Amino acid sequence: MSLDTARMVRMANAIRALSMDAVQAANSGHPGMPMGMADVATVLWSEYLRHDPKATDWADRDRFVLSAGHGSMLIYSLLHLSGYEHPTIDDIRNFRQLGSPCAGHPENFLLDGVECTTGPLGQGLAMAVGMAIAERKLNADFGDDLVDHRTWVVAGDGCLMEGINHEAIGLAGHLKLGRMNVLWDDNQITIDGSTDLSTSENIKARYEATGWHVATCDGHDFDDIRRALDEALANERPSLIACRTVIGKGAPNKQGTSATHGAPLGDDEISAARDVLGWEAKPFEIPEEVLSDWRGTAGAGARAHGEWLDRLSAHSQRTEFERRMAGDLPENFSLDGYIQSLIAEPQKVATRKASEMALGEINGQLTETMGGSADLTGSNNTKAGGIGPFTADDYSGRYIYYGIREFGMAAAMNGMALHGGVIPYGGTFLVFTDYCRAAIRLSALQQTRAIYVMTHDSIGLGEDGPTHQPIEHVQSLRMIPNLLVMRPADAVETAECWDIALRESDRPTVLALSRQNLPQVRTSADETGLSSKGAYRLKQAEGERRVILVATGSEVHVALECAERLEQEGVGADVVSMVCTQLFDEQDESYKADLLPNVAPGEILRVSIEAGTTFGWERYTMSNGLNIGIDRFGASAPASDLFEKFGITADAIVPQIMNKLNG
Amino acid sequence: MSLDTARMVRMANAIRALSMDAVQAANSGHPGMPMGMADVATVLWSEYLRHDPKATDWADRDRFVLSAGHGSMLIYSLLHLSGYEHPTIDDIRNFRQLGSPCAGHPENFLLDGVECTTGPLGQGLAMAVGMAIAERKLNADFGDDLVDHRTWVVAGDGCLMEGINHEAIGLAGHLKLGRMNVLWDDNQITIDGSTDLSTSENIKARYEATGWHVATCDGHDFDDIRRALDEALANERPSLIACRTVIGKGAPNKQGTSATHGAPLGDDEISAARDVLGWEAKPFEIPEEVLSDWRGTAGAGARAHGEWLDRLSAHSQRTEFERRMAGDLPENFSLDGYIQSLIAEPQKVATRKASEMALGEINGQLTETMGGSADLTGSNNTKAGGIGPFTADDYSGRYIYYGIREFGMAAAMNGMALHGGVIPYGGTFLVFTDYCRAAIRLSALQQTRAIYVMTHDSIGLGEDGPTHQPIEHVQSLRMIPNLLVMRPADAVETAECWDIALRESDRPTVLALSRQNLPQVRTSADETGLSSKGAYRLKQAEGERRVILVATGSEVHVALECAERLEQEGVGADVVSMVCTQLFDEQDESYKADLLPNVAPGEILRVSIEAGTTFGWERYTMSNGLNIGIDRFGASAPASDLFEKFGITADAIVPQIMNKLNG
Repeated sequence: MSLDTARMVRMANAIRALSMDAVQAANSGHPGMPMGMADVATVLWSEYLRHDPKATDWADRDRFVLSAGHGSMLIYSLLHLSGYEHPTIDDIRNFRQLGSPCAGHPENFLLDGVECTTGPLGQGLAMAVGMAIAERKLNADFGDDLVDHRTWVVAGDGCLMEGINHEAIGLAGHLKLGRMNVLWDDNQITIDGSTDLSTSENIKARYEATGWHVATCDGHDFDDIRRALDEALANERPSLIACRTVIGKGAPNKQGTSATHGAPLGDDEISAARDVLGWEAKPFEIPEEVLSDWRGTAGAGARAHGEWLDRLSAHSQRTEFERRMAGDLPENFSLDGYIQSLIAEPQKVATRKASEMALGEINGQLTETMGGSADLTGSNNTKAGGIGPFTADDYSGRYIYYGIREFGMAAAMNGMALHGGVIPYGGTFLVFTDYCRAAIRLSALQQTRAIYVMTHDSIGLGEDGPTHQPIEHVQSLRMIPNLLVMRPADAVETAECWDIALRESDRPTVLALSRQNLPQVRTSADETGLSSKGAYRLKQAEGERRVILVATGSEVHVALECAERLEQEGVGADVVSMVCTQLFDEQDESYKADLLPNVAPGEILRVSIEAGTTFGWERYTMSNGLNIGIDRFGASAPASDLFEKFGITADAIVPQIMNKLNG
Repeated sequence: MSLDTARMVRMANAIRALSMDAVQAANSGHPGMPMGMADVATVLWSEYLRHDPKATDWADRDRFVLSAGHGSMLIYSLLHLSGYEHPTIDDIRNFRQLGSPCAGHPENFLLDGVECTTGPLGQGLAMAVGMAIAERKLNADFGDDLVDHRTWVVAGDGCLMEGINHEAIGLAGHLKLGRMNVLWDDNQITIDGSTDLSTSENIKARYEATGWHVATCDGHDFDDIRRALDEALANERPSLIACRTVIGKGAPNKQGTSATHGAPLGDDEISAARDVLGWEAKPFEIPEEVLSDWRGTAGAGARAHGEWLDRLSAHSQRTEFERRMAGDLPENFSLDGYIQSLIAEPQKVATRKASEMALGEINGQLTETMGGSADLTGSNNTKAGGIGPFTADDYSGRYIYYGIREFGMAAAMNGMALHGGVIPYGGTFLVFTDYCRAAIRLSALQQTRAIYVMTHDSIGLGEDGPTHQPIEHVQSLRMIPNLLVMRPADAVETAECWDIALRESDRPTVLALSRQNLPQVRTSADETGLSSKGAYRLKQAEGERRVILVATGSEVHVALECAERLEQEGVGADVVSMVCTQLFDEQDESYKADLLPNVAPGEILRVSIEAGTTFGWERYTMSNGLNIGIDRFGASAPASDLFEKFGITADAIVPQIMNKLNG
């Protein structure tokens, strides 16, 4: 049931007033978008969005994504007006100030109702694709009674111009994610000015070419907005709803121009806007009748939620559904048996293959993992355990052919993880983390359990050459806060890493895996789970410890060979496998000092060995250490030739160590 | 003039034979694409491509980009058959082996005729957009007599599915780059299998929606290929030519399947292909009459080149044109006067503003700089010196409104630099280097003079919050080989950095610039050009040097304040401004030891101060040093609040130094 137009206008103007006042108070921010999209958002949130402001974690709520995250005052206004506990009016008053949950851009970890962190353009829409995927998957697993909701996106021209848009909508169109609707703020303005400056594209035709339904409306006409939303709901394809709007609508002298985009309107213009809008309330005050109208819109969602709770109570799969949505692994989930089988029969396999073996076990024990690859399935070894494809015809599948869309894949994985109920993993070559790095960073910032299966992790990939050989990638990923980067040495460590990654529910993981076969270095049945400390002593010096070799992944067996030769020379050498520097850094001082003792530099020589940049390894080897690595681009040749060329062999390393010891 | 079909077939089969044999010999590689596109490539190279194999640096040659770089044997075959000096047949025999210029993917620095390095999908096409931009710009500057060539691209489904495709073709369509033609290898196969697995897109409709002309042909019918190419030439828009092909054409049992994509065909299949193709020559032998037909195709290009040389000789702008194409700066180019004016009247400005001031000078002295921004012109301060926009109506302009297309911009800049005659620079926020990192890496690998103007380089951007605040970015960019990362401290250093970047003709540069105002720390007229050593002593300890503060960019003035306070405590402290770690690393040992002496750890305390990750700074501070930085995501608040919160102030730092000295 719709309210009359006059009341709707007031509700929309409440958004406009909060937005312009908050930006003015902060003296920074973006009033143009919230003011332009206020009418569309009012219709959507008061009449279409199925949500319960008093139960923000309701599993079957519609998901709303503000992809144009700079317009954050739009969602802060909507959450406050709709009756969410936060943001309070004081939170909004402190927009963009230290400690306020109303940050410059919406952050999922600061506010319930903010489904994902947006601001980096295009990614919100692409994460929404992942949410829509998760919704369909859970619907297939649990039925309409428990899962039957929509994903709504508000996107601007920037979101549509970014390359990731092409990947995201291509995936959504192909998968026929008809419950996804994108409201495009078609205001013909970007930061630099008119969109004419930089684009001549027919966006509607492009979306149609990609399998989308397109509707159009006047974004300031409530009935027309309703008509377009109804049209979208009725269509089985994902819908783009082009909302013709005036940016900064309501600011009489600046509306329709880029001047409203990213700067406060100024006191004079705000005063003029108040006159035009007939808005007499003081800043941060919402007239009682307007607030009452807004709060009244929550009833439908609350009722729907109540009915849903009844269905849940009676549902045969309730326990499993709740476990899945809570993100808990089954209590009996364990890779121990599998790991013991490796100990019993050591395997010389590439760690990408070891990952496939582990996944065979994992995908058998878990129902929530959803795998995929950006068109490198056979190389990333991501399709394992007999899981079938997730397709438009069968949403029960657990494997996504993402196509050649690394960035779209990573963002979709974030959306899936944020939606909950599934654990996404996806693969490409490690070097192509560069293509999706912005999404990996958002995994870390958003604290999502996304697992990146990044294979071909060094010059060990061989002939494909420098464009495909990671040099700086492992180290540069280790720099991203809250991201676990694991580079396992063999099949045992690979399984341990998978176990850790699955149990880390609020951190993403990058698994850096080899193309080439590696000997199994872990063969003792006594000690398991060693990778969980990030680094551990794999081999102890026979006599006095004069050297500590710290290696990762495919270089651990090289370190073992170096140690063996050093021992032959009478030089005691430890080998430490540092499978994850971040986890090691988190250990207590005594553990760290046991592995890497705090003796004066020179007493014990520390040597790092990793087939990538040496930059950063000084952290672990101290200033008189030796850092073996590759500080240039790679080359095209068989892998063994390259390890020799770049000196990542015991033959090349041992003499350097002996020189250093004797020097 | 066309050769008869039978001879054309033999010419195309020479490509097929070389490709399948080279991949087989290397036991790795991609035969499917070269065999599928052999017919199209034969028509293009023998009848349409204007080039002179004996003069690979002819400025007005057509540019050919193999965007689907994995099909590298296609271009190696074409270069050899057309009569380029390299690759020789022995080079091809050593395909993918150490030392062969026939690397796994084509590399511009290994072979003339390879216009850019490809393999990372989509970027070849996007670089071609930059080449086509440079062509039009030079045409506007020098006229049809000197510059009037085309840009040809061979692209696969991967290149079209990547997000960068959307950005690249959007830019090309908007700028009406009608002399750019993309030949799409429409074989309906990707690595994972049929394109149906991952896409349902109507590619032709999408290109049309983006302002492109689309032609279609049977990629195995010479006349039909010619018809489509003629159609493309006649159209004033950029053209996509959809070439329906059979991947691996000629391999009777495997063609049309993904089995031919990325693996050797095997001896049996190659033998069967020889039968089907009627190709009796041994591996790496080309029948004389086939080679003669191929070599005969070079005549037209050689004649055109000769005529062009005549026009060049007579041209009034010859000297300037040759200078531009050689990439030399004018002999009298200098920023010294401008820098002296800063010394005379110190400026407290943001370094992004200082960059604009320097650009005002640069764009006045040089004609070859072409600027732009990914829709942040007013924030990046990239439009300076009165340069006008480069538009479809006026190709003489020097400023590109790239739109919200960071990756497309960076790749276009690479293409412009590779084309020559222009020096591209472009801006976005530093945090969005994540969106274009794959192109920045290719700048470094390809040795292009692309200059990235990356502003808002730390928490100093303030209220926009963690999505917009670089933490790991500066350090992670420093890890990319052959990339100069400069973080200037004030207006003088900013000018010096611009001077270095412009003079580094075979290295790209990232300028990390502040949003916030910074005091001018360089005020001495005696010493200029200090930034060229990467680091220099800005302030000398008054008494005994007990501390060395190493800082960059916006933290240099913080270091100066720390030093002042330390001196007040009687602690002698140097301040080193490390504007570019890479350039510092290249200095001789005595210079480095003077700045950072090789004394025992503990004798002199080294402290790094940079408002980003501390990871990696141990390289310069030694194991007992102190690393001041930010090892977590940022927050949304005014900049001054954030510097305080994260302890990047003299108040927070000095006590830590005193503790360490007294500890």
